[in-house]
Amino acid sequence: MSIAPLPVPGYEPPPADSPYDADPAFPLHLEGKIEVRPTVRVRDNAGLALAYTPGVGRVSQAIADDPSLAWRYTWKRNSILIVTDGTAVLGLGDIGPLAALPVMEGKSLLFKEFGGVDCVPICLGTTDVEEIIETVVRIAPAYGGINLEDISAPRCFEIERRLQELLDIPVFHDDQHGTAVVATAALENAAKVTGRTLADLRAVVSGAGAAGIAVANMLLAAGIGDIAVCDRGGVMTSDRDDLGPVKRDMAERTNKAGVRGSLEFAMSGADVFIGVSGGSIPRSTVATMARDAIVFSLANPVPEIHPDDAHAAGAAVVATGRSDFPNQINNVLAFPGIFRGALDAGATRITEGMKLAAADAIAGLVGDDLAPDRIVPDPFDHRLAPAVSEAVAAAARADGVVRG
Amino acid sequence: MSIAPLPVPGYEPPPADSPYDADPAFPLHLEGKIEVRPTVRVRDNAGLALAYTPGVGRVSQAIADDPSLAWRYTWKRNSILIVTDGTAVLGLGDIGPLAALPVMEGKSLLFKEFGGVDCVPICLGTTDVEEIIETVVRIAPAYGGINLEDISAPRCFEIERRLQELLDIPVFHDDQHGTAVVATAALENAAKVTGRTLADLRAVVSGAGAAGIAVANMLLAAGIGDIAVCDRGGVMTSDRDDLGPVKRDMAERTNKAGVRGSLEFAMSGADVFIGVSGGSIPRSTVATMARDAIVFSLANPVPEIHPDDAHAAGAAVVATGRSDFPNQINNVLAFPGIFRGALDAGATRITEGMKLAAADAIAGLVGDDLAPDRIVPDPFDHRLAPAVSEAVAAAARADGVVRG
Repeated sequence: MSIAPLPVPGYEPPPADSPYDADPAFPLHLEGKIEVRPTVRVRDNAGLALAYTPGVGRVSQAIADDPSLAWRYTWKRNSILIVTDGTAVLGLGDIGPLAALPVMEGKSLLFKEFGGVDCVPICLGTTDVEEIIETVVRIAPAYGGINLEDISAPRCFEIERRLQELLDIPVFHDDQHGTAVVATAALENAAKVTGRTLADLRAVVSGAGAAGIAVANMLLAAGIGDIAVCDRGGVMTSDRDDLGPVKRDMAERTNKAGVRGSLEFAMSGADVFIGVSGGSIPRSTVATMARDAIVFSLANPVPEIHPDDAHAAGAAVVATGRSDFPNQINNVLAFPGIFRGALDAGATRITEGMKLAAADAIAGLVGDDLAPDRIVPDPFDHRLAPAVSEAVAAAARADGVVRG
Repeated sequence: MSIAPLPVPGYEPPPADSPYDADPAFPLHLEGKIEVRPTVRVRDNAGLALAYTPGVGRVSQAIADDPSLAWRYTWKRNSILIVTDGTAVLGLGDIGPLAALPVMEGKSLLFKEFGGVDCVPICLGTTDVEEIIETVVRIAPAYGGINLEDISAPRCFEIERRLQELLDIPVFHDDQHGTAVVATAALENAAKVTGRTLADLRAVVSGAGAAGIAVANMLLAAGIGDIAVCDRGGVMTSDRDDLGPVKRDMAERTNKAGVRGSLEFAMSGADVFIGVSGGSIPRSTVATMARDAIVFSLANPVPEIHPDDAHAAGAAVVATGRSDFPNQINNVLAFPGIFRGALDAGATRITEGMKLAAADAIAGLVGDDLAPDRIVPDPFDHRLAPAVSEAVAAAARADGVVRG
């Protein structure tokens, strides 16, 4: 067995002659952004006899006799599927599975680059909840985790819940929990930098889709003082008769203050605004918020309110989803380390405790650099994924959700 | 945008302390044999803004507007799924999807190493024909081809046929066609080295599973003189009432000589024996074959007859599936180049013409080295995959099965 590179034969990328290629994003995407490579290389028959037949047959037979050996002798221990149906892609919406592929490749790239996780894109040619669930269950055996991505609400809630019941590997809808983890980390630091704790804060969330519901759930778990969630009908209250089961459940567990009415009304006197639904918030509304207001204007690519306007209206801390303003709330701060830690620990699910541990680790990494324009770490901080993964793995063990 | 390596954080392989690791095949398989890697790397926010949001959104929107752009700006053009249900793995049989994973990883490794093809393993948690078909259709959008692998007969025939009808990308069951292509190439050269052509030969195939049916079909297409296929009931003839539809169809198109009875009887006077079913052939039976007999004893790991015994019984040319004897009939001679060529040409299916072109290219590469113990090229011959892929791509264009 020898390990050495072999030249890959006869493959030339297509010439860069498309009118699209004037946009530098396009030539970067030529032929895609990821590849599947051997981690061992065979260059002679002795190598072939170990990595392939007959040697591989002995490994397969051992796994047939003891399936737990698959965690040791296959890539399952380090590989996940990223699964989308293309119904809720970035700011683009329902563009279908094929058009979602560049985003999935980008996510796979980030999983490997930041977390060392091998991530395979699956773009589903179905949007039916039952078909998605049964398909993912059937293709799961070779993988150690499932990252659901860009699946529209409310289908995403049921798909994630039922897949987690059916599978013994982590199932994680990043649009929900990745966003929630980073927003929680950022809010912990925003509270700290303004001399408060989460318990001191009344927050308003604009948007009751995947991100809004998950952010609210996580802030509740993290001990937020009060939180009201708004959809297009305004504040979600338990006596509204136009709410589906997910929103109704959320309404019953939020809004201790009993605020009713519009988003704008709810924001009056609030300490925190978290926008995850788009739309536009005027400067005058931010001006009605409490002193030292915290504004997370996360709609992409156009924030609900421009950071300059939010500051002008009195906000003390402002964050967006964009890389060209300070305080970018970017899921990439969370998902590589979360899966790295879950896989390292042999976790069978991702618990609230693991997500909170991730948020604390992200928040803690800012350390002495904490400032109103510096509430989250840089995504390229090399300490980030190790810190998150260690915290997540420890929480998995503490929560008792690791393979026996 | 910068392209540069980033360290992958905090990931240590497990210690090599298993009793299995005394067998060198096992430490080689630690953590698996393949990985998913970026082909571009981002190391700053400018890179992130091209490879991920917001740049990736422009690429996704372009594909939503014109789906054909996916062949240019995603990995679909170069990626395939290798799909198994683990029911017919190597010599091991029905060991299930998880235990099949090391074999699929090995195949993925060879696809990349020899053909430059990105190959993702899917090990299905179902053996139901309808469920397999619908699952593969649903997960196909992000991939440019489907390699079916180690799915038992006769289910494999229907699965391949119906998937090819439902999908506009190549669907190829390697256990059938890869074996058939290499066996045909080898038989072309075996005939040549003994001064004959395929039309001069009467062949007997032992085994009517995936490989046996496909070898017989391909030899018919290549112009074999006559061929009889035997299952456990002996020679398949059209008046046997114990044959399923696939075997009956085969019986109706073979055995011009009208041979009846046992495999041993059929071999009497035959020019060629091709064993793909295991079992044992005694030396005395080979001795009844015609002069300059050709014996392909392809059962793995134990050939139907040892090469030394076959030669002692008078065989002029002997081939096996093993790397430790001359003339190894190994699918790796075919599948990397076949998919490379199909992907390069933008083929929508793999035709008989493409398979015959692959066989001719493999046979032709032996050239002046042709000898009774040298009827196929070395799998590590760097000319192999380019020669096969060019021939396959040309045949795809000639057959008019390329994307418009």
